Amino acid sequence: MEYCSSNPIITAADAQRLSAGKLKVIGAFNPGAAQFNGKTVLLVRVAEQFEPETGCMEIPIAKDGGVTRLKIAKDGRYDFGDPRVIAGRKGEKYLTSLSKLLVAQSDDGVNFSFTGNGIIPQGGYEAFGAEDPRITFIDGAYYITYTAVSAMGVCVALARTSDFVSFERLGIILPPDNKDAVLFPEKIGGKYYMLHRPSASEFARPEMWIAESEDLIRWGNHRRLCGVRDGWDCARIGAGPAPVKTKDGWLTVYHGADEDNRYCMGALLLDPQKPWIVRKRSEKPFMEPVNGYETDGFFGGAVFSCGMIASGDKLRIYYGAADDKICLAYADTDEITAGMSDVAGGTDN
Amino acid sequence: MEYCSSNPIITAADAQRLSAGKLKVIGAFNPGAAQFNGKTVLLVRVAEQFEPETGCMEIPIAKDGGVTRLKIAKDGRYDFGDPRVIAGRKGEKYLTSLSKLLVAQSDDGVNFSFTGNGIIPQGGYEAFGAEDPRITFIDGAYYITYTAVSAMGVCVALARTSDFVSFERLGIILPPDNKDAVLFPEKIGGKYYMLHRPSASEFARPEMWIAESEDLIRWGNHRRLCGVRDGWDCARIGAGPAPVKTKDGWLTVYHGADEDNRYCMGALLLDPQKPWIVRKRSEKPFMEPVNGYETDGFFGGAVFSCGMIASGDKLRIYYGAADDKICLAYADTDEITAGMSDVAGGTDN
Repeated sequence: MEYCSSNPIITAADAQRLSAGKLKVIGAFNPGAAQFNGKTVLLVRVAEQFEPETGCMEIPIAKDGGVTRLKIAKDGRYDFGDPRVIAGRKGEKYLTSLSKLLVAQSDDGVNFSFTGNGIIPQGGYEAFGAEDPRITFIDGAYYITYTAVSAMGVCVALARTSDFVSFERLGIILPPDNKDAVLFPEKIGGKYYMLHRPSASEFARPEMWIAESEDLIRWGNHRRLCGVRDGWDCARIGAGPAPVKTKDGWLTVYHGADEDNRYCMGALLLDPQKPWIVRKRSEKPFMEPVNGYETDGFFGGAVFSCGMIASGDKLRIYYGAADDKICLAYADTDEITAGMSDVAGGTDN
Repeated sequence: MEYCSSNPIITAADAQRLSAGKLKVIGAFNPGAAQFNGKTVLLVRVAEQFEPETGCMEIPIAKDGGVTRLKIAKDGRYDFGDPRVIAGRKGEKYLTSLSKLLVAQSDDGVNFSFTGNGIIPQGGYEAFGAEDPRITFIDGAYYITYTAVSAMGVCVALARTSDFVSFERLGIILPPDNKDAVLFPEKIGGKYYMLHRPSASEFARPEMWIAESEDLIRWGNHRRLCGVRDGWDCARIGAGPAPVKTKDGWLTVYHGADEDNRYCMGALLLDPQKPWIVRKRSEKPFMEPVNGYETDGFFGGAVFSCGMIASGDKLRIYYGAADDKICLAYADTDEITAGMSDVAGGTDN
């Protein structure tokens, strides 16, 4: 593990230059990543807020292609305790910021500039934002799985691009509440596979599942892949970037959080032919929030990767630090697999 | 609306005769229904419990094809307040009963006898039970959508039968938490459709969604169909039996519950060609828990239908009453549609 000396490589200030003016960028983080035409492309989650006013908060909501304001008075009817969420008495909730996904590109993988293109919420299932994209190159096109948030729930949406200029939306592929979905880069045994994370459950914890498809649009045969356990990943886990094919199996980076909402990164090794079987798992996180840019910020104590570029066994890990900026770390696949232990009971369920 | 004079037509005592002995049947309710070989077939949810012991409760859990006991002491570490659920301090939950799905058949539609066949939880995703089946006859086979409950969550499972003797499991078609799923009886515009109900959400209420498929196994293009509203269906709604084709559209019976968990039945009329559009909706429930067998029981104040047989415009509605017995009501489609109002904003989303 080595950290890029330019960290953080993208900040809210970098994205602010693109913003319409009335909205303030409070974070540029959790990017998807891909190699395209010799460049490194990031699809950056850019979160924007209206400037806070005295006595009320204005919530940005995407509607009919624009951004509307929902004024919420600080008169005791809503809870403003969480900087990310405003909760009403009847269970209704709003996000304090609206996220969109913007393309940034780079020749050297370190110095990025925004192109002005991306996935901009128009309303509907994205009324509260589009978040945390993962990009997977499949059969000549780039597929983006991302989180679409609205009063209808937290859904997994799919989009496709071949040029990072225009993006085609392909609908909601998993109903609420679900997030952290990522596609495998190729068919395995004749089927496409996707990791996903059902979020809220009466009986279960937020854990990783796997599903299969023949067309990337319709998904079935959902199976629980991997659960939480005592320690650093006891509260919730979810897939990170697209799994990387290695000689031993599918190297799958994931995030885990503990009861204090400290987000670290670990990895799984999934069976090469049967990706619904976990063969190995990190005992300890290979990455923890330790640097100042990870411990301090909008949501301090978080490293969270949605994008990774593999060249042979060299990995460039792009990640959100403290939910407000983007950093880069370098690792070898061997470094990550060295910290893994065999998983008992990795049965063919 | 007319109630069958033999109500309730099936009780826990009827199912007890089939039970292994050590387990006590506490409910026979919420059946799916179909016409098969000139008979009416019900797939009955039969809930069983171990006899309560002093100082502890024994939870029945399906495992390796049998039923195991999980002993939980009444020593303050668990909450026994809800007769249906036991909740631990760390959020872990168990059902106090284990449900299986048993076939009962009848020549006259009123007097039923159990055949001994059905869907019996073997463990895995059904470790805590198989519940609330809906049967849809499609392309020469009977498809059963049902709720599979385990510590992995509340999932929608699919099974198929052509004889109501052997049942083929086709996997988990919707990840947790989701229930109240039902298939339409035919393709519409070249696609299969399913109604479903994502249960738990950070931002949304438990509402009805619709998805599409080409093979009944893999599902996509999930869309929110219909929400809760003030009144009798303010807390949660979910589809009932398979939608019935009428000249005006798809007549879809659904259940709605209020904040007091009083379960009533209403109906939607969905567009004939675009079933993701609600054209009409019941203002008031067409069925409410008013009879003694509906107001009193394991969970009093509930009418809940998963099975309905249509012959022309005559409907036989089989339903669970108070979560422990099965009743039958007769209605004309006109009676139900007469109580409906146009839905504003039924847009092509």
